[in-house]
Amino acid sequence: MVYKGILTLFLLVVLNRAAAQGLTWQQVAPGVWKGVAGQPEAYNLLKAAGSAPSIAALQKMGDQPFPFPQVAVSATVSDGKTNLRFPLQKEEQVFGLGLNFQTVHQRGKILQLHVDHYGGKDNGRTHAPVPFYVSSAGYGVLINAARYLTVYIGTGVRKDSHNPPVEKDRNTDKSWSARPYSDAVEIQVPAAGTEVYVFAGPTPLDAIRRYNLFNGGGALPPRWGLGFTQRVRSLFTADEVAAEADSFRLKGYPLDFIGLEPGWQSRAYPGTFEWDKKRYPDPAGFVKKMLGKDIRLNLWMNPYISKQASFYKQITPYTGSHTVWTGEVPDFTLPEARRIFFGQMKKDQVDIGVSGYKIDEVDGYDYYLWPDVATFPSGLSAEQMRQTYGVLAMRYSLELFAKKNERTYGLVRASNAGANSYPYVLYDDYYNHEDFITALINSGYIGVLWTPEVRASKTSEEWIRRFQTVIFSPMAMINAWSSGTKPWSYADVAVPIKELALLRMRMMPYWYSEFAKYHFEGTPVFRGMSLEPGFESTATGSVKANLEENPYLEAVSKEVKDQYMAGEYLLVAPLFAGQQNRKVILPKGNWYDFYTGAYAGNGEVITATPGIEKIPVYVKDGAIIPMMAPMLHAPKKGEQVDLEIRVYGTKPGSYKLYDDDGVTMDYEKGRFDWRTVTVAKEANGQLKGMVEAPHNKAVQSYNKITFRFMTDNK
Amino acid sequence: MVYKGILTLFLLVVLNRAAAQGLTWQQVAPGVWKGVAGQPEAYNLLKAAGSAPSIAALQKMGDQPFPFPQVAVSATVSDGKTNLRFPLQKEEQVFGLGLNFQTVHQRGKILQLHVDHYGGKDNGRTHAPVPFYVSSAGYGVLINAARYLTVYIGTGVRKDSHNPPVEKDRNTDKSWSARPYSDAVEIQVPAAGTEVYVFAGPTPLDAIRRYNLFNGGGALPPRWGLGFTQRVRSLFTADEVAAEADSFRLKGYPLDFIGLEPGWQSRAYPGTFEWDKKRYPDPAGFVKKMLGKDIRLNLWMNPYISKQASFYKQITPYTGSHTVWTGEVPDFTLPEARRIFFGQMKKDQVDIGVSGYKIDEVDGYDYYLWPDVATFPSGLSAEQMRQTYGVLAMRYSLELFAKKNERTYGLVRASNAGANSYPYVLYDDYYNHEDFITALINSGYIGVLWTPEVRASKTSEEWIRRFQTVIFSPMAMINAWSSGTKPWSYADVAVPIKELALLRMRMMPYWYSEFAKYHFEGTPVFRGMSLEPGFESTATGSVKANLEENPYLEAVSKEVKDQYMAGEYLLVAPLFAGQQNRKVILPKGNWYDFYTGAYAGNGEVITATPGIEKIPVYVKDGAIIPMMAPMLHAPKKGEQVDLEIRVYGTKPGSYKLYDDDGVTMDYEKGRFDWRTVTVAKEANGQLKGMVEAPHNKAVQSYNKITFRFMTDNK
Repeated sequence: MVYKGILTLFLLVVLNRAAAQGLTWQQVAPGVWKGVAGQPEAYNLLKAAGSAPSIAALQKMGDQPFPFPQVAVSATVSDGKTNLRFPLQKEEQVFGLGLNFQTVHQRGKILQLHVDHYGGKDNGRTHAPVPFYVSSAGYGVLINAARYLTVYIGTGVRKDSHNPPVEKDRNTDKSWSARPYSDAVEIQVPAAGTEVYVFAGPTPLDAIRRYNLFNGGGALPPRWGLGFTQRVRSLFTADEVAAEADSFRLKGYPLDFIGLEPGWQSRAYPGTFEWDKKRYPDPAGFVKKMLGKDIRLNLWMNPYISKQASFYKQITPYTGSHTVWTGEVPDFTLPEARRIFFGQMKKDQVDIGVSGYKIDEVDGYDYYLWPDVATFPSGLSAEQMRQTYGVLAMRYSLELFAKKNERTYGLVRASNAGANSYPYVLYDDYYNHEDFITALINSGYIGVLWTPEVRASKTSEEWIRRFQTVIFSPMAMINAWSSGTKPWSYADVAVPIKELALLRMRMMPYWYSEFAKYHFEGTPVFRGMSLEPGFESTATGSVKANLEENPYLEAVSKEVKDQYMAGEYLLVAPLFAGQQNRKVILPKGNWYDFYTGAYAGNGEVITATPGIEKIPVYVKDGAIIPMMAPMLHAPKKGEQVDLEIRVYGTKPGSYKLYDDDGVTMDYEKGRFDWRTVTVAKEANGQLKGMVEAPHNKAVQSYNKITFRFMTDNK
Repeated sequence: MVYKGILTLFLLVVLNRAAAQGLTWQQVAPGVWKGVAGQPEAYNLLKAAGSAPSIAALQKMGDQPFPFPQVAVSATVSDGKTNLRFPLQKEEQVFGLGLNFQTVHQRGKILQLHVDHYGGKDNGRTHAPVPFYVSSAGYGVLINAARYLTVYIGTGVRKDSHNPPVEKDRNTDKSWSARPYSDAVEIQVPAAGTEVYVFAGPTPLDAIRRYNLFNGGGALPPRWGLGFTQRVRSLFTADEVAAEADSFRLKGYPLDFIGLEPGWQSRAYPGTFEWDKKRYPDPAGFVKKMLGKDIRLNLWMNPYISKQASFYKQITPYTGSHTVWTGEVPDFTLPEARRIFFGQMKKDQVDIGVSGYKIDEVDGYDYYLWPDVATFPSGLSAEQMRQTYGVLAMRYSLELFAKKNERTYGLVRASNAGANSYPYVLYDDYYNHEDFITALINSGYIGVLWTPEVRASKTSEEWIRRFQTVIFSPMAMINAWSSGTKPWSYADVAVPIKELALLRMRMMPYWYSEFAKYHFEGTPVFRGMSLEPGFESTATGSVKANLEENPYLEAVSKEVKDQYMAGEYLLVAPLFAGQQNRKVILPKGNWYDFYTGAYAGNGEVITATPGIEKIPVYVKDGAIIPMMAPMLHAPKKGEQVDLEIRVYGTKPGSYKLYDDDGVTMDYEKGRFDWRTVTVAKEANGQLKGMVEAPHNKAVQSYNKITFRFMTDNK
C-alpha cells in the first residue's frame, strides 16, 4: 500500500528529484574556497561585475583552514532549484545579506534577496541585496547567483537535525516558542546549480577583508570625492549652477562637486542623454568654467532611452522587451548596446570633462521597472538583469573614466556582490535618519558604500544632526534637487554647520588613508561594532539564560545599530533629532573624546551629552589621525598640504599614511606610497611621533608634518 | 560586431531561450476552454482539489464564443518559466486574484500569488491566492498552476505594444505619469508550462458561475452550519463546554455548533490528535451529550504531528523534511499518509460524532511554516505543497464525513482554486472590520467563503457593528477562544444583539436557498457590487477625462468595497464603529428598506442613518424572501417549520425555494427539491403570492407558508 502510493506519484518524483547532492570545493585564493553545486549558470554576480581578485593582498593575509567541516554544507538540486544548507552553531550571529535598514543581526530572519528600492521592511528587497554573510564565528559565505535568492537564517528546522529543538506542549508549557531553534542557514537558489564562496577569518573582519579583496578590494575614490557635494534643483541652468558654486565659495563652505538633476537633459524619463540646449547652450564651455572654479560635475541619469534620443534607432535592436516609463532598456551585456549607449555619454559628457554620474532607478520598484516576464536580446532573464543591472551600469560607465586615466566617484541606486571596488555610493528616497545609520553599518558588512545624505529637515536641529552623520560617511552630500536647501539655510546652525563641513575637509588625509586600506587591504571604512575587537554588548543575565531556548531573541537583544566605527580609530555615536543625550557602548580598551582628547571610558556604557553643535566621536587609545588645514576644495593633483597628526591616549602605536596623486588610476600601476607614522614612548615617558620619509617623490602630497598630542599624558 | 556580441552570449541564449510560443486551446465544457502552454506539470491546483465539473449545470448555461481573439493570448517558455500575456482593453476592470483585504479593483497592481497569512498589504500573499480573475468585460481566466505566480495586471508595457502609451518629458510636461497605460495582463508561472482556463460570460457573474460550476459548484453547508457558532476558550473542559451551551439556551441566544480550541488535544503545536483525558475524560459521552443539546462540535487542529502522537512512528516516513513548531508535516498527496493521519481523526473524533474541523495554520507565515527548501516524500516541491496544503487538508478531511453520508462545515486558513465546493470558510487573525468586509466581497469573485468573525471589541458599538456583518456572512461566528466574550457580554447591546442573532435564524430559508444556488448554479451568495446589474458607481467627470491617461487611477476611484450583495435580493451596507451614517450606492431599479419595506431609492447615492441597533439592508424590487420563526437551532433533518415569505416592492416576480434533508449528502443523488414561489399582479393591481407544491415528499421541511407584503402598494 505504501509503495502503491509512492508509485502514483512516480512521474513527479522523477521530474522533481533528479537531484545532485553535495558540493565540490576548490581553494581559489588563500582562505577562499569555491564550491560548486549542480550545474551553475554561465551568468552570475561575479561575472556581471567582472572584478579581478587582489591575489597579492590575499596572499599577504595568509592561509587559514576551511572554517567548518565541509561535509556540514549540503546542496540538493530539486524542482529546478538548488537548496543549500550551511551549519549554524547556537552562539553564532549572522551579519550582512544585503543593505538592510532596520536590523544588523540577521539570524532568525527570512530574506528574499531581490534588487529593489527599500520598501520599509528588512525583507531582502533592497538596493544591494548582496548574498554575502559573515558569521560572528569568523567566516563569510557568498552565493554567486544572479537570481532572487531566498535565505532562511536559522529559521527552518529539519526533522533529521542533529541539534533539534525540544518539543513542547503549547497548551500547558509557557516556555513554548513559536520560533524554535534552528541549526542551519538554508538558501534556495532558483537555478539548477550555483557557485558558492567561503571566506576564512580568523576574525569576522578578516572574512570581510577576504571577500572585498577577492573582488578587487574596496573602492578608492579620488580625493575630491571625499569633499562636499551639493545636488542642485532639477531645472537649474548653467548660470544658476555657476552661481551656486560661487555662493559656497563666498560664504566659505567647502564644495568639490555639484550634481545636476534630470533638467540637464533635453528630455528625461525617458532620456535623450544629451544636454538641453536652452538650459545649457554651451556644455563644453560650462564644464570647463566649472572646473576652473574647482567644481566637478556629476550628472543624473537613468538608462531608459527616449525615442527622441539621437541613437534610438541604433540601439533599439539591443533593448529589452519592455519599457520603463516608455523608455527602452539597453541590454548592457551586449557589447553593441554598450558601444552605442556609453559612446553617447563619452562623446557628449565625459570627453568635455564631466566627472561622474548618478545612476538612478536601476533598482525598482516593480511598478516602474521591467516585469519578470520581460526578455532581453542577450537571452538573459528579467530576473538576472534585475539583480545585476546596477552593477553593469557602474561597470561600463567606469570604463569611460578609466580610458581617460581618471577616477570618478558617483551615485547608484542598485548594486550587488562583485562591485566592491566600484567607486559608487548607494542612496535612497527613503529618509529616516536612524535607518540611514543602520544602512551605513550594514554597508560595511557587504562591500558597498552608502550615503546618509541630507536633503531638507523639519527643524534646524534635525538638519544639523543629519549633517553630523553626513560628514562621517563615504559621501558628504546635500541632495537639494527638490528642496534647494543650502548648508546655511538654517540660520541658527549655519556656523556650526560650516565647522562640521570644514572638519570633514580637515580629516581628508585620514579618510583618504582609510579608503586606501579599504582598497588595498579590504577593511571597510564604515563598519558595525560587532567587527571591533573588544566589543561586547550588555546582554542581561535573563536573556543569556534564554539562549538555549531562543538564540535569535538573544541576538536581537544585543543588536547595536546606532553607533559605528569610522576608519581605524573612530567610534561615531550620532544623536538624532529630539535627543539631548545618548548611551554609547565603548569597547574594551581606553577611549578618548575626539574633540578634547580627554579620557571617556573603557568597556562600558557611557552617556554622551554633546550639545547641538557636536556629534559624539571617540578615539581608540594609541590612535594616530592625520589631519590638514581646512580647505574649500580637496587638494588637487600635485598640490601639497601640511599635516597635523593627532595622537590620542597613552599607548605607542603606528599608522600607515597613504598617498597618491588623488585623481588618476596610476595607483593601480603602483604609483602610490605608504608612509609609516610611529608614536613611541621616550625614556621620560612622553610620547613622540615620527614619520617615514616618502618612498616615492612623484606622489608627495604632504609637506610639513607636525604632531599634536591630544591627551594629557601626565 | 553585432553578431560578435550576440555570439559571446550564445550559450546563455541556448540555455534560456528554448522557448515554446502560443497556447493550444480546447473547449472542455460550454463556455469553458483549456489552453496549454509548454509542458504543464503533472501536479496543479485542480488536480490537488480533485473536484469534478458540474457538466449538466454548465450545459444549462449554454454555449458562448471565446471571449477575445485567441491569438491575443501568448505564452513564452523561457528561463524555465512560462510567461503568459492576456489582452486588456482600456475600459476593462479586473476582479479576483486572491482573497484581497483592501482592494477590489486589481488593475494596475502586481501580485505574487502565494499562500500566506494576510500581512497587511494586498500583494498577493493571502489565505486564498486564487489565480482566477474576472474582467468587467465578461470573462474569467484561471491559471491552473500550483506555483507562486507573479501577475502584472495592466502594469508592464512592451515596446512592441499595439497600444503604446505616449512618451512624455518629465522635465516639462506636468501630465507625465509614473505608471503609463498598459494593454495586457502578464503572468509568470515558474514552470516550463501550464494549463490555463478561460470562462465565457456574457456577464462577469456568468464567468464566475462557470468557474464555480467547473469546480463542482459552490459549497452547500448543512442547515446547522448557517446557524450560530461560538468558539470557546482554549483550555475549556467538557463540563465548561456543556455549561457554555446551556447558557446560550437559558438566555435565548441561538447556537448550533461550538468550536473547541487546542486544549481538546493532549498536546498541541505540535499535536497528538487525541483527546486530553483530563479535560475530556469521556470524549464519546461528551460528544453525545452535546448532540443531545442540539450542539455540534468543531475541533481546532493544525496538521503538525507530535512525536507523542500514537501514530507518529507509522507516519514519519510520509512526512516532509522540515518540521513546523517541531511537528512533522504529513505529505497528504501520499495515500498512506492520509490513511494514517485521517484514520486517527476518524477513529478518535468523527466516529464518535464530531461534526467538523478548524484547520489552522496551513497558510503560513514563512517563519512558522516549512521553508521553500523543504522536500516531501512524494517529490512535490515545498512551493507546490504550500500552494495546495489547505486544499489537500480540506479535501481529505471531507472524505471522513462523506463516508458517513454527513455534511460538515468547517474553518480553514488556506485555500486555492478548485476547492470551490468545499464547505470550509476562511478566516484570519487580522481584525480590521472594514477590511473583513472587503475580503467578504473578494471571496465572491474567487469561489471561496470568508467569515468576518467577531472576537471581542473595544466598545459595545464596535461589538454590535461587527455582529451585524457576521449575520450577513457565510458563517455567523463568535471566536472567543482568547477573550471568552459572549453575545451578551456588552450589556447595553445585549438585547439588539439577540435580535440580530435571531434574525440570522429567521432568514435561514433564504440563506439555505441562496447557498443551494451557489452550489447548483454557481452564483456566489456574498458578492461585490460590480456583479450587480444596474450598478454604476459615481465617477466624477475629471476622473473620467483622465481615463486615457491613467486607467488604473480611474479604476481605483470607482472601487466600492464597503457594501455588498447577500443572496439574490439584498444589498448590505455595514456601518463601522464611529460612523453615525454612511453613503449607500443603490443600483438602478427601485430599492426598499429591508426592515420596513419603504422605498429607499433608485440608481442613486443615499445616506443611511440606521441607529446603533440596525445594519442598513436594502431589497430589490420584486424580492421574495422566505423566512421562518426564530429558533435557537437550525431545523433538524425531518423537522418542519412554517415559512413567512416577505415580498418587497411593486414588481411581480418569482423565487426558487430550495429544500433537502439539510444534513446528508443525499442531495448529490438528486434528493432535493426546488419549489417556485410566484408573486403575480392581480386584476385589482394587488400582488399575490403562490408556492409550487413540493415535488419530493421525502424532503419537505416547510409546513405552513404565508406571504407578507412589506411595501405599501397603494
